[in-house]
Amino acid sequence: MGKGVNVVELYGVGKRYDIGVTGGHRVSVVARRDGKHELYVFDKGNEEPLAVVALDEEEAKLLAAVLTGTYFHAR
Amino acid sequence: MGKGVNVVELYGVGKRYDIGVTGGHRVSVVARRDGKHELYVFDKGNEEPLAVVALDEEEAKLLAAVLTGTYFHAR
Repeated sequence: MGKGVNVVELYGVGKRYDIGVTGGHRVSVVARRDGKHELYVFDKGNEEPLAVVALDEEEAKLLAAVLTGTYFHAR
Repeated sequence: MGKGVNVVELYGVGKRYDIGVTGGHRVSVVARRDGKHELYVFDKGNEEPLAVVALDEEEAKLLAAVLTGTYFHAR
């Protein structure tokens, strides 16, 4: 898969994005039409995820902000 | 921890962001000064991560784009 994202249409549900990462893991995100996301982390060549995390829209945005260095906290 | 992000300064390294998510998991991101990230997924109350994923700057940006619904592929 290398660098890049593979997008799979999940009819009636949303989309799945598979991101191959250098370390050998694969990260998949299922983005549902209702704004919910599931984040899956897979080991290379293994179909059973190491971790599955459900994220609502706000949590997904927080994680994205942290990943892009745009998160600032107001406290 | 609830909704929100706890930021921990890692002197000389970067910052760690802990995001509590509704499902009971905890997601932590270590953002290093050199642009590298590590994503950790923890089960509630467990100090041993379920998964650790190293992400370079591009991979972190791809994942963030997918999470915010701003990823579009050119193919």
